Amino acid sequence: MREVRYLLVGLGNLGRRFCEVVQEREDLLAERYGLTLKLVGAADSRGAAYDPEGLDLTTVVALKRGGGSIAQYPNAARDGWGALELVEAADADLLLEASPVNLEQGAEPGLSCIRTAMKRGMHVVTPNKGPLVAAFHELHTLAKAQGVQLRYDGTVAGGLPALNVGCRDLRGARVRMIEAVPNLVTGFIMDMLADGTGWEEATATARAAGVLEADASWDLDGWDAAAKLVILTNAILGADARLEDVDRAGIRAVTVDELQAALGRGERYRLVARTELQHDGSYVLSVAPVPLPVTHSLGRLGRKQMGVVYTTDIYGTITLIIDEPDPIPSSATMLRDLLDIYASESTLHDG
Amino acid sequence: MREVRYLLVGLGNLGRRFCEVVQEREDLLAERYGLTLKLVGAADSRGAAYDPEGLDLTTVVALKRGGGSIAQYPNAARDGWGALELVEAADADLLLEASPVNLEQGAEPGLSCIRTAMKRGMHVVTPNKGPLVAAFHELHTLAKAQGVQLRYDGTVAGGLPALNVGCRDLRGARVRMIEAVPNLVTGFIMDMLADGTGWEEATATARAAGVLEADASWDLDGWDAAAKLVILTNAILGADARLEDVDRAGIRAVTVDELQAALGRGERYRLVARTELQHDGSYVLSVAPVPLPVTHSLGRLGRKQMGVVYTTDIYGTITLIIDEPDPIPSSATMLRDLLDIYASESTLHDG
Repeated sequence: MREVRYLLVGLGNLGRRFCEVVQEREDLLAERYGLTLKLVGAADSRGAAYDPEGLDLTTVVALKRGGGSIAQYPNAARDGWGALELVEAADADLLLEASPVNLEQGAEPGLSCIRTAMKRGMHVVTPNKGPLVAAFHELHTLAKAQGVQLRYDGTVAGGLPALNVGCRDLRGARVRMIEAVPNLVTGFIMDMLADGTGWEEATATARAAGVLEADASWDLDGWDAAAKLVILTNAILGADARLEDVDRAGIRAVTVDELQAALGRGERYRLVARTELQHDGSYVLSVAPVPLPVTHSLGRLGRKQMGVVYTTDIYGTITLIIDEPDPIPSSATMLRDLLDIYASESTLHDG
Repeated sequence: MREVRYLLVGLGNLGRRFCEVVQEREDLLAERYGLTLKLVGAADSRGAAYDPEGLDLTTVVALKRGGGSIAQYPNAARDGWGALELVEAADADLLLEASPVNLEQGAEPGLSCIRTAMKRGMHVVTPNKGPLVAAFHELHTLAKAQGVQLRYDGTVAGGLPALNVGCRDLRGARVRMIEAVPNLVTGFIMDMLADGTGWEEATATARAAGVLEADASWDLDGWDAAAKLVILTNAILGADARLEDVDRAGIRAVTVDELQAALGRGERYRLVARTELQHDGSYVLSVAPVPLPVTHSLGRLGRKQMGVVYTTDIYGTITLIIDEPDPIPSSATMLRDLLDIYASESTLHDG
């Protein structure tokens, strides 16, 4: 039995649900992979707790479900510590960095936590797009130099292993195009607008459903899709794209008339993120609302579905779609990444 | 620059096209992965050639395209050698075993070649279902004992990385169902029958298109789909399923009337291979022609498309579809598997 001592920074929906998923399948992880996961430290925006003997997941989940902070954790809360102090001081094998995207503040505190963890020899798993968009190559170079793993499959399209497939299963190919519908909320709102719901009500419904970010512009103006496209493009194509390289239009760029006309033709608008290979070998990145006919691989995505299409020279055209009825798959990507680091030799397939 | 010395057993469509793909992207493989692939030995059903200095891919391809045998290769043909003699004697790092499926003959000569290669310390890549169906666990145990890799992503659904995603990206999940349309030919024939084409003409057209195996029963009676389902189930679920465990019906089990009635409802029949989790934790495997409504994830597959759906507890429902307009993706899976062994550290994503 191998014990993995991990830190968890960020205890919002993603972080808390990860704790619930892991707690529920302790036995499965032990039986299949011989792994025990021990949470030794955690931080939220109000404080941190650390106990080398391990924190109790039930207590952590109860605190957060009750609207409290990890800073109230009995006997293990650390006065004056934030996330960075925790990562600087704790003895752990791995950091799960699940704090919210925050590009305005230089992707902090996530970026500093990730750098510090890697410098201290920890592997890092993160579904947080901010640090990857802000410092993609710097973080990869640092991981290599430190001999640690950096995994971020959850940054794109929820629980869909879009990055994993793109990076591993397309090796050896020339990728001509990446097309993605990488979030749920923009399609959800455009469908409501097409059905006659007003803009205010549509965004309020999305917010109530928990799919619209606190900063609505992040989703509605295409920043979220652009960030995901930058990560996909850099990871899969070895490119050095930045957020400002994306020709970006959000869903406000389409009118209700256009949405309804598309619906009349049997088409649905989706916010499509696309990277296309040019004749000179460069790539052009764009995000825009596009009416997708039913004949398009992503043309029948429902409100709970996301997808990615890879057009390649030797592996044909590969389409990946996820049905994500609840936010669990997005949280579970952290388990996928963690097992990819610690259990990759346990599956039959990996021999 | 790292040199990989490989043997290629089987020079039919898959093997020959692999040579063409590799030859065309020598530069790409060197630049991206620092790899040089050197074919040092090859065998077909009529003989073998071996040259430690390397065989010339252009010569090999020309011999096969001209209907000849590798036994005619100038100066390197080895009198009296077959595939097994080549694998027993050659000095190489890896075996590509691409001979045709042959379950009647105990999956030979593929099975013996694979065993011998692993015992001699070679990694093995194979798109040949026969040895995996005949000796799944034996081969994995041998690979582990020898410290070599065994890869077979090409055994299921052509160029779709169905096995890779199932084995890697579903780690930690309980998989409730695997549903696959894992070959092209059965859907192709059922579509023609539904359109009014007679059985003889439909199978002749499939044969002329090169998608129907020499032994038509292999495809038409569902053996091919069943073999692929056994491999998927064993690899992903760690099961010990055998071909005889599959409740198998082929496409002869459906009538033209049924096919046309489905078409009238907007549905299409596909030969669906399915593994379902039961309440007692066991799995039930079946292959049968099923009318798929357009609302099903695999309900709009065209004649050149295959797909797999994984229904899981924590990663939602994940659908993978490939458009495979020609047989190149099936051959290219051997390159994918080879790069997975030798270049997994070269991608950014793998850090």
